[in-house]
Amino acid sequence: MKTNQPALLKMVTAAKKASFETAQLGTEVKNKILAAVACELRARSAWILAQNAKDIKAVKASGLSPAMIDRLTLNSSRIEAMARGVEAVANLPDPIGHLISSWKRPNGLKISKVSVPLGVILIIYESRPNVTVDCAALCFKSGNAVILRGGREAFYSNQALVSVFEKILGKFNFSKACVSFVRTTDRKAVDALLKMEEQINLVIPRGGQTLIRKVVRASRIPVVKHYQGICHIFVDQAADLKKAEEIVINAKLQRPGVCNAMETLLVHEKIAADFLPKVGERLKSGACELRTDKLARKYLPWGKPAKPDDFGREFLDKILAVKVVPDMNAAIQHIQTYGSGHTDAILSEDRQAQEQFKQRVDSASVMVNASTRFSDGFEFGFGAEIGISTDKIHARGPMGLEGLTSYKYVVEGNGQIRS
Amino acid sequence: MKTNQPALLKMVTAAKKASFETAQLGTEVKNKILAAVACELRARSAWILAQNAKDIKAVKASGLSPAMIDRLTLNSSRIEAMARGVEAVANLPDPIGHLISSWKRPNGLKISKVSVPLGVILIIYESRPNVTVDCAALCFKSGNAVILRGGREAFYSNQALVSVFEKILGKFNFSKACVSFVRTTDRKAVDALLKMEEQINLVIPRGGQTLIRKVVRASRIPVVKHYQGICHIFVDQAADLKKAEEIVINAKLQRPGVCNAMETLLVHEKIAADFLPKVGERLKSGACELRTDKLARKYLPWGKPAKPDDFGREFLDKILAVKVVPDMNAAIQHIQTYGSGHTDAILSEDRQAQEQFKQRVDSASVMVNASTRFSDGFEFGFGAEIGISTDKIHARGPMGLEGLTSYKYVVEGNGQIRS
Repeated sequence: MKTNQPALLKMVTAAKKASFETAQLGTEVKNKILAAVACELRARSAWILAQNAKDIKAVKASGLSPAMIDRLTLNSSRIEAMARGVEAVANLPDPIGHLISSWKRPNGLKISKVSVPLGVILIIYESRPNVTVDCAALCFKSGNAVILRGGREAFYSNQALVSVFEKILGKFNFSKACVSFVRTTDRKAVDALLKMEEQINLVIPRGGQTLIRKVVRASRIPVVKHYQGICHIFVDQAADLKKAEEIVINAKLQRPGVCNAMETLLVHEKIAADFLPKVGERLKSGACELRTDKLARKYLPWGKPAKPDDFGREFLDKILAVKVVPDMNAAIQHIQTYGSGHTDAILSEDRQAQEQFKQRVDSASVMVNASTRFSDGFEFGFGAEIGISTDKIHARGPMGLEGLTSYKYVVEGNGQIRS
Repeated sequence: MKTNQPALLKMVTAAKKASFETAQLGTEVKNKILAAVACELRARSAWILAQNAKDIKAVKASGLSPAMIDRLTLNSSRIEAMARGVEAVANLPDPIGHLISSWKRPNGLKISKVSVPLGVILIIYESRPNVTVDCAALCFKSGNAVILRGGREAFYSNQALVSVFEKILGKFNFSKACVSFVRTTDRKAVDALLKMEEQINLVIPRGGQTLIRKVVRASRIPVVKHYQGICHIFVDQAADLKKAEEIVINAKLQRPGVCNAMETLLVHEKIAADFLPKVGERLKSGACELRTDKLARKYLPWGKPAKPDDFGREFLDKILAVKVVPDMNAAIQHIQTYGSGHTDAILSEDRQAQEQFKQRVDSASVMVNASTRFSDGFEFGFGAEIGISTDKIHARGPMGLEGLTSYKYVVEGNGQIRS
């Protein structure tokens, strides 16, 4: 299919219009629609799988990696998981119409700060089809219209999943345009969408750094994002070394390919001799490669010497940079220099050290005596996650429904005029 | 002076470094420094006026308008007002380190959401020198480093005012780089700054729409802004017409050149005959030109016929567009089509109409029975205003100190690992 800009503009304009309606929907209606979507996903499972099979077939022919094919593949339990995800979003509290604060002015004006939807949200994502359902559900629950632009390799799967939303929205006599799907795989469509700053309020790119940088470069629309998760753990001299060992192993090895996995380990020199050989053995038996600075190498002779760019690098793999630091100050400076502001942790039983670290490290999530892997919308108790932001404007850190809202001020008077 | 990009980058890098320090300052120290700045402004009043005289002399030679010269001119009472402004900011509550919310997870993790500064803020502004002092005080109080880029016509005045901050910061042994001034009038300096997205966290342009659009086009850094204030007042059929008359006159005539002045009056047709002739007389005697649609002209025969682009236009002058609408629905649709999302008001004694309007109009400030002129940081009780935003990302509406903050999550555990 060719890009058709007038058609795209028509779609986006319809989404904008629909967003005024979605913003007004009551909690009960929204939840009913989401529940019906979950039912429909289950009912049309066989058809969705058939559509998914078309994508798989094309992708196999083009020689995609088995890991990519796995991410793309649906089966009945994955569809069941999507349906449950939609039900979970229905069960979350409605983030809209919430009174954030209110106060009265001496002249009698009553000012209320009330949460409202953002408007139209464009999501650009890669292969996993469940992102389609997750994002549509989250945007709908938060009163936003969403425009979904999935990867070309999942085109038929995504289209099938969106049609489930469309069918249910139609059943409730509600505009389908609040869940819109870009029905072309032409890349120029993305460029055109990214220019529509009058209609689209926010872009959320979900994918690798290359995708995100491309989106940021191409658009004037605000983008919520994180480029990289270069997470540090600093093991202080006052750390409980047994706890520290478990946390370090967990943060590095439990799932090395994700943004909240640890990439650099900083160890206080006073406990390096006690800590590093032991934890090193466990990392080694977990097939983790170590890239060590000169001091760390003393205790980890089997590690590779770190190159300068191994610090501040997101390996997303079983590779860990290790550095011994003279004190916490050096650790914090290292994090300020090489960190990405995503998630950084201190392991220490010293209250004062904890306080200093919490205060001075300016990352979206600062952890004390816990694995960096907890930096996650579900683990934070948000019930859902639309993304993780390392921006300081708007939402920061794991983003749930609240990150998809703005607010307005309602000012109620009784004839007040300004003098 | 020529643009010197390495010098600019050095300045911005120093500001970034200083921002880590400013972020850590306690409330008491910040307030002491601000109090000392206020004293120093008074003490060096004569010298500041001498610097200001240099600007005035240059500007008079170049033939600037008397209004512009007035905006640029300082005198001892204006300096006193600046000093009091700085004291007022010192007296405001510290927006940093504030516990926004906290909760405990079933696994024992304690999550706290804490307010933090944004980092480095670039302010680009035009002639009025008091903006230098206001913005520096607000950014400092909110723990941010600020880079000030004032208009070339106020160069010496701004430099003098910044040097007051620098002297006091030096006295307290604190880095001067947290209040930095762009010491060149070369326009290329702005372009260079707007590219420094790694160092600068937020840009606030204060000035006309042309300046703001230029900044948005040139930068990838988030910009907090409003392009225009196209404020509407809808006088409902259930309005108290006496109150409505006072509010309409106030919103249009009390200060027509500002963004929260009314630009379009929408009147319910059922009360048009009662309301329009009376309020029209008062507008006329206030030298206000009316641009009326066909129905409104019936009651305001002396008004000019409105051209299509008079609706949705920011006159910033004693000119008002007037339209008679069949019902509230039409009024809301008009606001959705022509409004700028700044401030819109309903005047009505009907609770249901008020609720509908409050709910459906998605502007940063929605007013009920009050003048649009109240959309202002001081009138909202923020004690200060850094700007008004019509964005839906980050701060919206009048922005005080809170708009200059972000937050971080502090997660405290006792050895938790993720399974």
